[in-house]
Amino acid sequence: MRVKATVSYLGTDFVGWQIQKNGLSVQEVFETALFKTFGTKIDSVASGRTDSGVHALGQIVHFDADTSIPAQKIPFAINANLPRSVSVVDCVIADPDFNARFSAKRKTYCYNFYVSNVVLPLLETQHTHLLQALDIDAMKKASEILTGEHDFKCFEASGSVVKRTVRTIYSIEIDTQHFDINSSIAKKVDDDKFFNGTVSISVTGNGFLYNMVRIIAGTLYFVGIHKLSLQDVQDMLTKKDRTLAGKTMPPQGLVLKCVEY
Amino acid sequence: MRVKATVSYLGTDFVGWQIQKNGLSVQEVFETALFKTFGTKIDSVASGRTDSGVHALGQIVHFDADTSIPAQKIPFAINANLPRSVSVVDCVIADPDFNARFSAKRKTYCYNFYVSNVVLPLLETQHTHLLQALDIDAMKKASEILTGEHDFKCFEASGSVVKRTVRTIYSIEIDTQHFDINSSIAKKVDDDKFFNGTVSISVTGNGFLYNMVRIIAGTLYFVGIHKLSLQDVQDMLTKKDRTLAGKTMPPQGLVLKCVEY
Repeated sequence: MRVKATVSYLGTDFVGWQIQKNGLSVQEVFETALFKTFGTKIDSVASGRTDSGVHALGQIVHFDADTSIPAQKIPFAINANLPRSVSVVDCVIADPDFNARFSAKRKTYCYNFYVSNVVLPLLETQHTHLLQALDIDAMKKASEILTGEHDFKCFEASGSVVKRTVRTIYSIEIDTQHFDINSSIAKKVDDDKFFNGTVSISVTGNGFLYNMVRIIAGTLYFVGIHKLSLQDVQDMLTKKDRTLAGKTMPPQGLVLKCVEY
Repeated sequence: MRVKATVSYLGTDFVGWQIQKNGLSVQEVFETALFKTFGTKIDSVASGRTDSGVHALGQIVHFDADTSIPAQKIPFAINANLPRSVSVVDCVIADPDFNARFSAKRKTYCYNFYVSNVVLPLLETQHTHLLQALDIDAMKKASEILTGEHDFKCFEASGSVVKRTVRTIYSIEIDTQHFDINSSIAKKVDDDKFFNGTVSISVTGNGFLYNMVRIIAGTLYFVGIHKLSLQDVQDMLTKKDRTLAGKTMPPQGLVLKCVEY
């Protein structure tokens, strides 16, 4: 039977989802657990790769298993063979033609920043540190420009070989939360700028090019510090030149939140 | 001059605050950074030890430095010599007789749980996983019993040699937050029980015995699953027997939030 599993992982110590020669991947750990659980080599297919260091709240994976374990109990059986950095949080029986990769309709990624003049160690594992105050209103306006069906060629890692670079972004949501701090060195900024808090950018789309969310995050960051204007963002979509967009933000701020089918 | 520094650290990879022979301590890393910053060996005194694996949001440390760097810039100077798991988030000049340990009036620790039938990797670093639904009302009532001045001998790690075990707890606050989940294996529990979410227990007191907050957290957990009654909690305070209280919860859920002087 075909199993659709929801898998969560802390990406810190992995080279990403996909099995690679240069280090330990989540897939390798997951398939080792499948072997121990079901007693036979089982291949798995995820909704897509996640890069080295990227986390997942709800990665979707399918595999075929010949087992009498009820679907609801499969997570506990597999988890008994997984480290605490990887966990199956849900399992359902899927149609035999369900494919975690090709059946995916929408994915949501979240990119997390914290904005502070000092490193905050308790946030470092799952956020990227920004030192400059952000113009959140400008970032929201830039998000609106990026929402919709566009050619996202300039938001793709250079050197990619994907032919079709048109994608649809259904929504980009930016949420902020201030820290509760009382520090003599806490930087004061203008009321219309955001500082001393976390910023979470949720992007939902029908598919993403390589590094696309991390480049969108870097572009919105540059808009937030007025290094890029709204006109610049418009121009990226028409000129399709990677060098016009913001930088690729580091992996630890990125989480694959959910995949819809 | 005497400097009062607020230090934050992720305790995961450290043997605790205090310098020890058996591994890398936060203090060793911190004093190495002081040496690199000020060019001379400088001793530091913290408000108290934190155990191996315990985190700090606002540990307070004092040290004496002969420097012309303004207090407000000292954090940035020291942080340039620290790994990202340790950070000075504030510095002020203190009176020459200020002592981070002996001048401390109140400390607040926070113990963080998550309650779920599966491991959630993104929470593992800073929470302890509980599998059973909690009766939060009972935990709050038990917290009220523990609040005030009491002999907390039964909440002290066995083998401790502290003579005076009377301490005052000013407040214990329990905050809960449900997950936003949609899982076929998400356990349903009675409306009066808490499941699928995080529980944060903040304890403010004038001082704490060895392992006291972790034993309070374990006792409230046992009250939450009805393994201990409110009467049992009353009895602990009068009978002063460590075996009557709940278990010592693991370090990764504990954070030293702040110290007041």
